[in-house]
Amino acid sequence: MSVFRQTAVVKFAWCDFAGIMFFPRYFELCNDTVEAWFAEALGVSFRKLHGDLNLSVPTARMEADFRAASRMDDKLDIALTVERLGGASCAIRIRVTCRGEERFEARQIIVMTDRETLKSRRWPDSFRQKMLPYVEAD
Amino acid sequence: MSVFRQTAVVKFAWCDFAGIMFFPRYFELCNDTVEAWFAEALGVSFRKLHGDLNLSVPTARMEADFRAASRMDDKLDIALTVERLGGASCAIRIRVTCRGEERFEARQIIVMTDRETLKSRRWPDSFRQKMLPYVEAD
Amino acid sequence: MSVFRQTAVVKFAWCDFAGIMFFPRYFELCNDTVEAWFAEALGVSFRKLHGDLNLSVPTARMEADFRAASRMDDKLDIALTVERLGGASCAIRIRVTCRGEERFEARQIIVMTDRETLKSRRWPDSFRQKMLPYVEAD
Amino acid sequence: MSVFRQTAVVKFAWCDFAGIMFFPRYFELCNDTVEAWFAEALGVSFRKLHGDLNLSVPTARMEADFRAASRMDDKLDIALTVERLGGASCAIRIRVTCRGEERFEARQIIVMTDRETLKSRRWPDSFRQKMLPYVEAD
Repeated sequence: MSVFRQTAVVKFAWCDFAGIMFFPRYFELCNDTVEAWFAEALGVSFRKLHGDLNLSVPTARMEADFRAASRMDDKLDIALTVERLGGASCAIRIRVTCRGEERFEARQIIVMTDRETLKSRRWPDSFRQKMLPYVEAD
Repeated sequence: MSVFRQTAVVKFAWCDFAGIMFFPRYFELCNDTVEAWFAEALGVSFRKLHGDLNLSVPTARMEADFRAASRMDDKLDIALTVERLGGASCAIRIRVTCRGEERFEARQIIVMTDRETLKSRRWPDSFRQKMLPYVEAD
Repeated sequence: MSVFRQTAVVKFAWCDFAGIMFFPRYFELCNDTVEAWFAEALGVSFRKLHGDLNLSVPTARMEADFRAASRMDDKLDIALTVERLGGASCAIRIRVTCRGEERFEARQIIVMTDRETLKSRRWPDSFRQKMLPYVEAD
Repeated sequence: MSVFRQTAVVKFAWCDFAGIMFFPRYFELCNDTVEAWFAEALGVSFRKLHGDLNLSVPTARMEADFRAASRMDDKLDIALTVERLGGASCAIRIRVTCRGEERFEARQIIVMTDRETLKSRRWPDSFRQKMLPYVEAD
């Protein structure tokens, strides 16, 4: 099983008055991670996806646990795997740790859609083939 | 049972290249709604909460369903209720509709904490009394 | 001379670790104000502008002075006037005060452009007529 | 003369409905660049600056020219130099190019202040020594 990995350093701009990472910023990090996974692992940048291919991958559901606070300058390790690959949907798991400590875990369901009509459609085979290695083993 | 209601118009800045509301913006809207509920219904602004009282209400868990896309200029109706009020936690339900159509529903668990130590602590009685009317009837 | 006025309350989400409004948020406020001016004073929402009319108003230049810090819960008074209306450009002045204290002043030059080509074009007369009352008297 | 250089790829989240980088995102990029310059060139992270040292560097003035639109996936080259180093202030120049094309240029004046009182104070000598190499030659 493959794991798609990224790192990110918590910026000043992500932190709130309490000095900890403002929780909506984690969801932007999820989006950035999925965007990087598409570009680097699936070979389809979001520019190409939305522009040339006229497709989109809106989020249908998000479940997230915030396990410990992140602070400015923390170096976050982000790991993306696929929990379940459906016909038109994909349940992505994103785990964020810092020096081994669990910080955040999300299950984000995205859906392959036509960008104009917002109707769902099956994953193109070229996508599916490259997503399969990231599916978690039982 | 009381329902805390707000409205918001989807701004240009909230929309992505696909012309629909970028999903992390919904979580900022959740935060804004909880902030307004504290200020207007509980009588404690986030400025007073974090500054004078040295308390914080970090999010421990978020579950959200995105049921239909929102577009620029849509007027969103936001409704906040309390699904469950625990000793130190509170499961908030936030429903967003537009002209009666369901758009977004979230269950956000916040925890009353000391701002310095980030340790949880019981809701002050003055908070609890004002939160009780928003608890959903069985 | 007309002045377009808005108010905004500084949200938790806009403040940084220092407890003051993070400066890039002022530029989002500028954008929101111009968007509201277009919708309410010129009668053209940004949805209609970008969607139906296929036009855009990118920013060509921004000058801004941050005169005093804004803090959470501050109620900001925003005033928009037009410093200079050119053939295809418009120099907008945005002043932000709080309880009479000057906080922020910006001069933002926007340009009427075709959304696809990003080439500038003259303001449509219907826009110009409604912008003229906001031009500052000498 | 030293130049502090960074790169950034324009993310989906930074782009607006028009498909181009939303202009307030450039100012977040300025802040990120100054933050990285402090951490890497001056040896003082913003966490240390605001936390341990109880200092802050609010922006007093920003002038920016947007010379050409940036689009999703564009790789931006960012260059930071110091136009003028004052007793308590610093005029920073930030130039953003993409494949040699000028995209954005800003002059951002930051001020060394006490984080609690927000009063300006002289740059500590340890900062000044490390800033001097970045001052532009006449």
